[in-house]
Amino acid sequence: MRDFRQVAIVGAGKTAFGAFDGKDLRTLAVEAGRKALANANAAPEAIESFYLGNFAGPEFTGQNHLAPYISTALGMAGIPSTRYEAACASSGAAFFQAFFAVASGVYDVVMVAGVEKMTCQPTPRVTEILAGAGDCATEVNAGSTFPSLFAMIARRHMHDFGTKREHLAAVAVKNHSNGALNPDAQMRKTITLEQAMNGRPIAEPLTLYDCSLISDGAAAVVLCAADRAREFGAKPVKVLGVAQASDFVALDRKPDITTFPALRAAARKAYAMAGVGPKDIQFAELHDCFTIAEIVAMEDLGFIERGRGGFFSFEGGTRRDGPMPINASGGLKSKGHPVGATGAAQICDVVQQLRAEAGDRQLARHSLGLAQNLGGSGATCVVTILGVD
Amino acid sequence: MRDFRQVAIVGAGKTAFGAFDGKDLRTLAVEAGRKALANANAAPEAIESFYLGNFAGPEFTGQNHLAPYISTALGMAGIPSTRYEAACASSGAAFFQAFFAVASGVYDVVMVAGVEKMTCQPTPRVTEILAGAGDCATEVNAGSTFPSLFAMIARRHMHDFGTKREHLAAVAVKNHSNGALNPDAQMRKTITLEQAMNGRPIAEPLTLYDCSLISDGAAAVVLCAADRAREFGAKPVKVLGVAQASDFVALDRKPDITTFPALRAAARKAYAMAGVGPKDIQFAELHDCFTIAEIVAMEDLGFIERGRGGFFSFEGGTRRDGPMPINASGGLKSKGHPVGATGAAQICDVVQQLRAEAGDRQLARHSLGLAQNLGGSGATCVVTILGVD
Repeated sequence: MRDFRQVAIVGAGKTAFGAFDGKDLRTLAVEAGRKALANANAAPEAIESFYLGNFAGPEFTGQNHLAPYISTALGMAGIPSTRYEAACASSGAAFFQAFFAVASGVYDVVMVAGVEKMTCQPTPRVTEILAGAGDCATEVNAGSTFPSLFAMIARRHMHDFGTKREHLAAVAVKNHSNGALNPDAQMRKTITLEQAMNGRPIAEPLTLYDCSLISDGAAAVVLCAADRAREFGAKPVKVLGVAQASDFVALDRKPDITTFPALRAAARKAYAMAGVGPKDIQFAELHDCFTIAEIVAMEDLGFIERGRGGFFSFEGGTRRDGPMPINASGGLKSKGHPVGATGAAQICDVVQQLRAEAGDRQLARHSLGLAQNLGGSGATCVVTILGVD
Repeated sequence: MRDFRQVAIVGAGKTAFGAFDGKDLRTLAVEAGRKALANANAAPEAIESFYLGNFAGPEFTGQNHLAPYISTALGMAGIPSTRYEAACASSGAAFFQAFFAVASGVYDVVMVAGVEKMTCQPTPRVTEILAGAGDCATEVNAGSTFPSLFAMIARRHMHDFGTKREHLAAVAVKNHSNGALNPDAQMRKTITLEQAMNGRPIAEPLTLYDCSLISDGAAAVVLCAADRAREFGAKPVKVLGVAQASDFVALDRKPDITTFPALRAAARKAYAMAGVGPKDIQFAELHDCFTIAEIVAMEDLGFIERGRGGFFSFEGGTRRDGPMPINASGGLKSKGHPVGATGAAQICDVVQQLRAEAGDRQLARHSLGLAQNLGGSGATCVVTILGVD
């Protein structure tokens, strides 16, 4: 590999996440894109290439060919516009590609956006569309859905490490507590440990409160060569490391389902690139599609030793005032999870903390943060490390 | 932009195109990927990143998250694996991204694959899925399908330039004549001008013989830094220029529907990058999703002056023995059009000619060729120029 240029985020913008009858997929993406441009104080003409993360827009809405469909509406006709799909890590994957295009000198200024419009379909159909991120020939044909796959992971984690139901519930309680303070979150209400423990069963041991939300939403960032960052209006955030890795789509191909090799590989590479280790990271946005996923991620990222993630969460270690604040945004659990938007939204949330613009959720230490975006039951993972001086 | 490294294609492989009941999407992609690896004499472990072009696999087959689903089956678990979607230019877009990743030094060796499995759905559903590459809110809701959109383009071309029905038919006759000699083509039969003229009407003035096929198939290439090409087994082909451009998805947003601004922009950039002009190109694989599309493409690429493409075709100018052979493979019309595979397949077909491995279809001049891959009614276009010494 060559030496690469430094890359900065100079604009970030998100829609609120929720169920928005009046906003279609393109409206959401354009809203986020315009906010990112405004935040960067950049004209659409400044953007040289458009990277769209979207998981299943055609299945949710019928519309495909989404990248030029959106980039033209943003006033960017002409430039390369491509959609990137890697399940729920689609906009993380788009960010990964965009980063290297700028770092290697292909472009100076690009936009990464992520979008998903999910609430236009009834819940059973949403579950079916999401199941397409698993292995249809084996898992899905056998009746698996993502709640059931992550329920198996939770059960095994409990069996191997003594993780308890209340450990999972503590993740939900903490994320709801954070999301209640986030004006853009879909579910702005606190819950008690008792509520979380006694939620409606979805796939034992997971209750309704262990599962992330079905959401509409979009997020976008403007990336540029760091030596051009001063041309833009917003405080630049450095992209210190980013890595993407893959694994088998079917959970049964993993020798141990309580750890994700793609997550560990992406973390290892991103840390090496940034020249930091897990103990240096001050806060993180993790992919809590289910509460157990946040626990596995904090372990695979090295924030806590293997098997101790549940205990650490229950003891408050990941709260905003804890030693390793996780999902101060509310996470996928409370903020919402428009799947194709999630990776870009996590990056926006880390940027907000790094710029000290997180209001009531602002963390004490905010110069080095991490975002971790997962696809399927671990077949894709993207880890991004961001910092400010 | 920095100076970039030279990039070479060192492996190419395709499946036959057709309707294959016994082969699912992954089977097809793996077959093409293995052929490309074998052609390069490369192990799967040599591949550093996997670029999958696919338009609508989830809608055709239910399976999403296709890139790791396929790369793991090829023995490439771990590496970044992402799906690229840009309608029928999906694998052209994947190739474009992969090229720049190698040219700029991010990777030394990557694989680009394209796949589509279409015949598993009934024709009305196929038409509906393909229509998602148009603007659903306007065109599709008004009843448009792609045959009707290209029929409008054909009518306007006839009105503006005096293009005749027999000019369109001549494109079909020529492409069938070429495809009849291609052992991997879906429809290996010659047709007469009378047959083409009197085909079943699909969307006036287009008959059945003006429309490309509904196909299953896959294609793959191995790209590497040119200075490492000697490590691989096959004769390297140089990637001299590649460009992608975009435009509005809806046809009614184009001021003139008989020319595609994205096609012209991609051509201009690819020519500039390769340091050649249209008169230097010895042969081309063009995106003849409909006969009129081949005519528009040859004009927008500058092979022939505006409005003369139909006349030139009718006079035999694009036959294998003509001054500008087009679609010696048979094109989308006769070879088949598994949409996500088409861009990669065109590149394989150009590589085959450049290596003088095209058998009965081998062209006399074969050191500089061009591939042009179109998405929708011109909202995405990728132009690639390949050569050998």
